[in-house]
Amino acid sequence: MCSVQEERFMDLEKYIAAIPGFPKEGIIFRDITPMLQDPEAFKETINVIVNYAKDKNVDVVVGPEARGFFFGCPAAIALGAGFVPVRKPGKLPRETISKKYDLEYGSNEIHMHKDSIKKGQRVLIVDDLLATGGTIEATIELIEQMGGIVAGIAFVVELKDLNAAEHLRAKGYDVFSIVTY
Amino acid sequence: MCSVQEERFMDLEKYIAAIPGFPKEGIIFRDITPMLQDPEAFKETINVIVNYAKDKNVDVVVGPEARGFFFGCPAAIALGAGFVPVRKPGKLPRETISKKYDLEYGSNEIHMHKDSIKKGQRVLIVDDLLATGGTIEATIELIEQMGGIVAGIAFVVELKDLNAAEHLRAKGYDVFSIVTY
Repeated sequence: MCSVQEERFMDLEKYIAAIPGFPKEGIIFRDITPMLQDPEAFKETINVIVNYAKDKNVDVVVGPEARGFFFGCPAAIALGAGFVPVRKPGKLPRETISKKYDLEYGSNEIHMHKDSIKKGQRVLIVDDLLATGGTIEATIELIEQMGGIVAGIAFVVELKDLNAAEHLRAKGYDVFSIVTY
Repeated sequence: MCSVQEERFMDLEKYIAAIPGFPKEGIIFRDITPMLQDPEAFKETINVIVNYAKDKNVDVVVGPEARGFFFGCPAAIALGAGFVPVRKPGKLPRETISKKYDLEYGSNEIHMHKDSIKKGQRVLIVDDLLATGGTIEATIELIEQMGGIVAGIAFVVELKDLNAAEHLRAKGYDVFSIVTY
């Protein structure tokens, strides 16, 4: 069973392009657009996320702007869940709650509509990439502020050396990644 | 048959919020986030788009950043097609082709990876809202520049008074909207 799964994950890795120096020098950008472009690879990626989440009684899938939408929306449809976007400032038209967090240089701020998660709803967070985990930690905080329960967190790509998954697991979160570097 | 379909469309309209004065005075913003949040409404919206497109032999779904991703990605999965994002400058890491177009005040520029559509591929464009049609016309131009065939264009919401659908149909494009205002 394990080897079948390993093989499947390896296949999907072929659809992730490595782009050295994007968006700035010293960074290898993991580009998931070839995976979206290939019908079988895209469908299989969604299947793997859905298999991870299918026994978690997910009510809502939450995905951060904009690449989280690629995977989070089809996963929501397949799980029979709703989808709630996490967006940058100025994008959501109704009343929001927000969280600012620090980056290496500067800071980011994310918003969610303040009525987007109901108390007790079980939430699956889906994003394309786990790096330092700043966006995800801010997302978790907003979800929990609304009374949601983070039932699982799924990434297509995880950058292992940054230890963000380990850090999230130490806090009790269930974290899953398809491809790790 | 027709009345069943009409009724279904009316149901979906309930999940679109009208936000007067967003993002600026004098505009009524059509907010589709309640539609995403409701599992049945989100699934039904995707079903309606897929029903429109299912006989068009679609190879690729193209969706503009960022709200086009909400509907385009699940539609691609359901149609067994790939998904190609249209993005703002600086977001796509590989070589792109781009198109600048004028807005009422200022201009926008959209990009697609230059290898994202293969010659002869049949393309369905999906976006949340058709207003003046500027983004869609630029998107069509990039798709056709790569040799793609625009087999259909689907919107969740169409602002009828701006006549963009009529304009696109006059050029020979097949345009479909679920809810019109």
